[in-house]
Amino acid sequence: MNDTFLKACRGEAVDYTPVWLMRQAGRYLPEYQAMRSQVDFLTLCKNPKLAAEVTLQPVDILGVDAAILFSDILIPLEVMGMRLEFSEKEGPVLSDPVRNKAGVERLEIPDPEEDLPFIFDTIKLLRKELANRVPLIGFSGAPFTLATYLIEGGSSKSFVHTKRMMFQNSPAFHYLMEKLSTTVSSYLSAQIKAGAQAVQLFDTWAGVLTPFDYAKYALPYVKRIIAEVKKEGAPVIYFANDCAGILKEIKKTGADVTGIDWRIDLGDGIKKLGKKAVVQGNLDPCALFLPHEQIEDRVKDILWKGESARGHIFNLGHGVLPQTPVENVIALVEAVHTYGRKP
Amino acid sequence: MNDTFLKACRGEAVDYTPVWLMRQAGRYLPEYQAMRSQVDFLTLCKNPKLAAEVTLQPVDILGVDAAILFSDILIPLEVMGMRLEFSEKEGPVLSDPVRNKAGVERLEIPDPEEDLPFIFDTIKLLRKELANRVPLIGFSGAPFTLATYLIEGGSSKSFVHTKRMMFQNSPAFHYLMEKLSTTVSSYLSAQIKAGAQAVQLFDTWAGVLTPFDYAKYALPYVKRIIAEVKKEGAPVIYFANDCAGILKEIKKTGADVTGIDWRIDLGDGIKKLGKKAVVQGNLDPCALFLPHEQIEDRVKDILWKGESARGHIFNLGHGVLPQTPVENVIALVEAVHTYGRKP
Repeated sequence: MNDTFLKACRGEAVDYTPVWLMRQAGRYLPEYQAMRSQVDFLTLCKNPKLAAEVTLQPVDILGVDAAILFSDILIPLEVMGMRLEFSEKEGPVLSDPVRNKAGVERLEIPDPEEDLPFIFDTIKLLRKELANRVPLIGFSGAPFTLATYLIEGGSSKSFVHTKRMMFQNSPAFHYLMEKLSTTVSSYLSAQIKAGAQAVQLFDTWAGVLTPFDYAKYALPYVKRIIAEVKKEGAPVIYFANDCAGILKEIKKTGADVTGIDWRIDLGDGIKKLGKKAVVQGNLDPCALFLPHEQIEDRVKDILWKGESARGHIFNLGHGVLPQTPVENVIALVEAVHTYGRKP
Repeated sequence: MNDTFLKACRGEAVDYTPVWLMRQAGRYLPEYQAMRSQVDFLTLCKNPKLAAEVTLQPVDILGVDAAILFSDILIPLEVMGMRLEFSEKEGPVLSDPVRNKAGVERLEIPDPEEDLPFIFDTIKLLRKELANRVPLIGFSGAPFTLATYLIEGGSSKSFVHTKRMMFQNSPAFHYLMEKLSTTVSSYLSAQIKAGAQAVQLFDTWAGVLTPFDYAKYALPYVKRIIAEVKKEGAPVIYFANDCAGILKEIKKTGADVTGIDWRIDLGDGIKKLGKKAVVQGNLDPCALFLPHEQIEDRVKDILWKGESARGHIFNLGHGVLPQTPVENVIALVEAVHTYGRKP
């Protein structure tokens, strides 16, 4: 079994730096596009056979050191009572956004195993099909990020509605964060019970908060979830996008691994987190448009900086972009495996 | 004359911390909305009498310590040969984006005074109408930020086109940056000659670059512009949004004042820039939705942190949002003036 990724998560010695990529299953792969030409996004997420197939594509094509469940962070919001649609143009749309106490009260706390059976069926199927080739990562959105979608009703530029509720109706906001945290904890724990060998908590929008507000409104919930989920015995990765200004706070999450986006030098990030940290990252997804030799140079630089941490898992600083040439992604994974070998 | 702002720019002793706000003239003001109900955005920018009126509104209503020319960073791109439109929904749209050498070659380097006479007429009119009540700030977009609009054709989420051109056609990208830098230098110098008493260079999108790419593709042009414009004798402010990860590089711009966005603690930002820095910032624009006492608490905190720098100009960490209650903006300015008094 290739357990390099899991060893790195635990800060153990490894033969080489493992690599996987956020959104490694996705639109940049012709094999994924072929699937999507036949079935829409949400149907794909909810069909264990197809979701498993799409999850495995990058394992076969790229040779990455981990598979990550194909799904979407917004899936659990549907069973909390929201109507979720994906528009090609606008991205996710949640009708009837939650902006007050009554809205929060209407949200149901789901029983993940009962309400999202397809997730756990996909995980079980994947463990069988992976047959220990590489470990399987489960995931969830972090509560603040999920809250932004619930409150904004989709993506946002300035997150005015979220921060207005946070600032003007703090009790309702905290109530929402409580409900989301309970949901996320049980969702991730159930994924591990079903077979996920590590889980990642995606905090895509945490970086829009001041460090003070992150510490006050987001971090306590992240800590609670991570403490809870860790009881299941699998490593927990916490990734906050645009994290440079809040790393001092992120140090306190209790996560086994901290993901770092590309806007900060990995060496600087490690200095902030401390040398005992295990880090994941942090190539700019757009660097995959560079010529191969330059991709290699950036890989070497990141690997070299990663050595100052207790452990390093190579990844992008955010998801693979749809326009990315597949051959460059393959070259990236090869470069990490070549230059990340330990002497 | 209230020259507190200019003194602070130069790092000189002041009686109190001066304050102005990015987008202090804008949609959150009913007086501005009344104007806009009669005239579209670009017409307003190009009419000296109306642009001056809108520039003065926040000086009267808020009591800020500086006025900033009402205009848009994209205005100079029109006279470089681009067609510019503002759509209520999508924001700025530039048709025929520049994505190769031929596109860059087609761009003309304008003679600002000849091609944008309304800008300098507005500045002259404003200096007369302000009659030294407060200083007048001119501004321009920084070349990287202007390049993103030219290349993307408007706003973007991932800046794929920009980075693709930067990485795959570096000579054409640098050629574009050269042309933009020449334009920005002469544009800002001409604003100072016409009467602007300080200028701000807005690098709204610099924060999407890795520190390495910022240093390679954006910083050299910023440095060159600032060195050039400084010859006119007015202070230059450089503001890069989402700057936490690139402050080490931003330290090298040569700007008199460095603007800092809200995603980093002001104290941490000053540590990165050094205590000799003069800083501007950095209240989260959304903090203006807080109750007044909490706005005051945040003002006190930022003022206290600002004291560790050689000089501090209070500002938001980005522009005032359209939904902001005017009374809270007034309360903010009052709080800065009250708690920012030097003993």
